[in-house]
Amino acid sequence: MNIKAAMAEAAEAVEHVMDRLLPIPEGPEARVIEAMRYSSLGGGKRFRAFLVLESAKLFAVSSQCALRVAAAVEFLHAYSLIHDDLPAMDDSDLRRGRPSCHKQFDEATAVLAGDGLLTYAFEVLAHENTHADPKVRADLVLALAKASGTQGMVGGQMIDLLAETTPDMDAAQITRLQRMKTAALICFSCEAGAILGKAGPAARHALQFYGQEMGLAFQIGDDLLDVEGDSAETGKPTGLDQAAGKATLVAVQGAESARAHADMLVEQAGSHLDFFDGKATLLKEVARFVINRRS
Amino acid sequence: MNIKAAMAEAAEAVEHVMDRLLPIPEGPEARVIEAMRYSSLGGGKRFRAFLVLESAKLFAVSSQCALRVAAAVEFLHAYSLIHDDLPAMDDSDLRRGRPSCHKQFDEATAVLAGDGLLTYAFEVLAHENTHADPKVRADLVLALAKASGTQGMVGGQMIDLLAETTPDMDAAQITRLQRMKTAALICFSCEAGAILGKAGPAARHALQFYGQEMGLAFQIGDDLLDVEGDSAETGKPTGLDQAAGKATLVAVQGAESARAHADMLVEQAGSHLDFFDGKATLLKEVARFVINRRS
Repeated sequence: MNIKAAMAEAAEAVEHVMDRLLPIPEGPEARVIEAMRYSSLGGGKRFRAFLVLESAKLFAVSSQCALRVAAAVEFLHAYSLIHDDLPAMDDSDLRRGRPSCHKQFDEATAVLAGDGLLTYAFEVLAHENTHADPKVRADLVLALAKASGTQGMVGGQMIDLLAETTPDMDAAQITRLQRMKTAALICFSCEAGAILGKAGPAARHALQFYGQEMGLAFQIGDDLLDVEGDSAETGKPTGLDQAAGKATLVAVQGAESARAHADMLVEQAGSHLDFFDGKATLLKEVARFVINRRS
Repeated sequence: MNIKAAMAEAAEAVEHVMDRLLPIPEGPEARVIEAMRYSSLGGGKRFRAFLVLESAKLFAVSSQCALRVAAAVEFLHAYSLIHDDLPAMDDSDLRRGRPSCHKQFDEATAVLAGDGLLTYAFEVLAHENTHADPKVRADLVLALAKASGTQGMVGGQMIDLLAETTPDMDAAQITRLQRMKTAALICFSCEAGAILGKAGPAARHALQFYGQEMGLAFQIGDDLLDVEGDSAETGKPTGLDQAAGKATLVAVQGAESARAHADMLVEQAGSHLDFFDGKATLLKEVARFVINRRS
């Protein structure tokens, strides 16, 4: 199966599970549930979900368990997009070709929908249906919380916001920011398979290293799309980072050099998968895909 | 020991643990950590922490474990206050007698600080230092997530916001709102001791019922303070709920009837503690305290 078909299949499967997991909008609190569903369902490449599912396959984890973890990661990702889009943050009106959550609903509902999705990600992971072994569930919660907190996504978004007013970050500082803001959750998605499969430290580290390098390459791919992409294909306005003076490697190194950097990261990422003796073909392919995508 | 001294002692102990658990502000992301520390340390009655510690004592749980759970609950409570105070939500400039988080920092930092504290609450619970048994850690995460999500705090805040523009809620609807918005986290705080102590279902249910009734009484106490309190003592402006047309039992039933309602709830709450044969003296006392406090 080629990588695009495999990703589409994974996206459909996780979308179905997310739909089933999310509460039904009813009662006077229905509005926040509608907003959670609006922003997490019906779109997205489900790239992080794909990584969870593929890494889980390396350890023969049941797809039911892996899909719940994949759904939790996508809930968490959706929360981060809702809050990042808020007027006080990146002030983005469009997301996946539709009005962003605070445009479709309102700011208060968007804050709450993000809070609800973040909270629900942990609820799903901690539930016994995610894995029979509570040690696995607690480890998943711990690893996801670390990837999402001040050492990860939240800290990275803080640096990213501050960078707009102090625009003299060098490549090393930008790399650290992107490791936190983007790569940490991608890294967790890869590591999740090893946690679910109770893999030894060597396998878990191999996936962590793969995820870190590939996560950085993914972010460079994203920044290249902002410069070179077509907003009709990406579903969001392009040229925004440049206009906002965002700290990206593309801005600092130029597009050509950033692309070469991403190529090298993909190469390095792939090398960590050699640990799995050719079993991780799709993960190797997806690393190349992230820097050559068009949306 | 009287209830005030016991609460002060618990507050000091949990404050110390929270201070030690929170990251040190350093690196370019320091600002969000400063905001998390600003809004979670240095104040508050630590009422929820007290409930965790007292319920844990019923099952001879080590105070080290109980204090970590108490800290996690206070981190989560602090997140909810930061987000509730945001301009798009309750738009409150003052909290615990100091500028609210978005006034002291800015809106973006306040959104992120709340996100960081919510995430960190789950990280602390899932960490092996919280309890040697991973089943206990996963159960704590699950119960806290349920209390904080759309069935609990997030759903309650949604209803509360909508109530401002549809001001015809009856007592039953307001009670449901307050069960979700306030009582759910208070209920978790009481239940936490039973989870930590691996108590049987009867003990756990007794604490849940106690927490639900007492949590409602607590909210009525809060609403009475808004009407009758002195902002110099409460550390926040009073009369705001009335001015905003907030849905409270005090507004619907009048202060006197609401106070009688709260008395009845405290009575009911206390009766659930009879299960513990006089061992839960301070929990019984604190239920009376919540409706007679001045801040």
